[in-house]
Amino acid sequence: MKEKIKIVRYKKDLSYSYALGATLAFEILKNKSEYVEKIYLHPNVSQSIVDELKKISGNIEFEINNKVFNILSDKENCFVIVLFRKFESKLGNDNIHLVLVNPSNAGNFGTIIRSALGFNVKNIAVIAPAVDKFDPKVIRASMGAIFKINIVYYQSFEDYCNEYYDYKCYPFMLQAKYTLQNMNIDKNQKKALVFGNEATGLPDYFLNYGQPVIIKHSKEIDSLNIQTAVSIGLYEFTK
Amino acid sequence: MKEKIKIVRYKKDLSYSYALGATLAFEILKNKSEYVEKIYLHPNVSQSIVDELKKISGNIEFEINNKVFNILSDKENCFVIVLFRKFESKLGNDNIHLVLVNPSNAGNFGTIIRSALGFNVKNIAVIAPAVDKFDPKVIRASMGAIFKINIVYYQSFEDYCNEYYDYKCYPFMLQAKYTLQNMNIDKNQKKALVFGNEATGLPDYFLNYGQPVIIKHSKEIDSLNIQTAVSIGLYEFTK
Repeated sequence: MKEKIKIVRYKKDLSYSYALGATLAFEILKNKSEYVEKIYLHPNVSQSIVDELKKISGNIEFEINNKVFNILSDKENCFVIVLFRKFESKLGNDNIHLVLVNPSNAGNFGTIIRSALGFNVKNIAVIAPAVDKFDPKVIRASMGAIFKINIVYYQSFEDYCNEYYDYKCYPFMLQAKYTLQNMNIDKNQKKALVFGNEATGLPDYFLNYGQPVIIKHSKEIDSLNIQTAVSIGLYEFTK
Repeated sequence: MKEKIKIVRYKKDLSYSYALGATLAFEILKNKSEYVEKIYLHPNVSQSIVDELKKISGNIEFEINNKVFNILSDKENCFVIVLFRKFESKLGNDNIHLVLVNPSNAGNFGTIIRSALGFNVKNIAVIAPAVDKFDPKVIRASMGAIFKINIVYYQSFEDYCNEYYDYKCYPFMLQAKYTLQNMNIDKNQKKALVFGNEATGLPDYFLNYGQPVIIKHSKEIDSLNIQTAVSIGLYEFTK
């Protein structure tokens, strides 16, 4: 890393971010160790965790440093912080893409990333504006799944479609007439499952793309929450 | 109500609870108004909300009272609090029951209640020990769905089974071999979908009940989160 690293609370324009806690530390070391710059240890960290970390961290520098924890962590049980450089990802050409249009909540986004990994959907396109995938809150909610998933941002949905014109879009939206429950899914066709913002959903013009679909639900609720809807969509399309 | 009501922070042994915020106030007034004792208004409440509440609240007493909000609400945007007596529920004999064994997290429990309503599953058996359904955090997370769903507690799973011996149990558990993805569901059989605690799942002995089932997921995650698993189960069984 060329710039001088200064330990400050995470901001989007930093070129590095932080994985907080031992669980996330192990996940990044197992999956993206080439981007790890440094491992900070709290003076109270247990020796067994340090031993485990050292087994898989190669030449990565360790530092015992109380202050870093005061700056970066609100949790009392956080004893390891991994500083890592942000990395680029590329979408793979797998059978299914997940496309998230303007996700804005870090916790929901992280949980969705984890669900995607659970259904082996490893490529997520995100349409800006959107929450930052390197926000430590996203990383935490993903429980480290973010280190195993390709997440690529696009300035517009058109940009995504132009690049992946061979993927059939399935916009999930309340305005759709066709229900997921009654759908026949063509196994051989490449598919993009498209979900909107957690509060506002997809705008009407997505009705013009591919096969809009609704997860039928009772009229007694306005909508399923985004995380539930995405998980059900992933479940059905990967069956 | 015979006892004298004292406005204190919610505790399980109170005979009353609180619905915080206008959204929940409307939900309880529409669905369980017979249990509402009093409606507290914050001095800053908007007149339009008061007008709407008065339309559906019959003879229920209103009181403008600042202190109640200081005691009961952490949120700055809470301007209505409904005090209501706890009510008994009875499970209906609908085709599907949801059975939650030892749920412990209020937010998860509330979200699951809302998902159940979304799939028209209106009867939930809860096996104790478990989080209290009248905890204001549960009520909030359910977004008021709790006022439309029958939730009944049982001291043991056996107690539930003895009462509903004609329901076939489907314990959702990682130890199961049969996958939800490959299951044929008998439409005419009454069913109990059984889910364990969010951290520990169902113990092994549930393998002896009915048809244990697993939602197949990739090995890269330990398990789906409880709310996701329940929603997928409800989706598949109500298709």
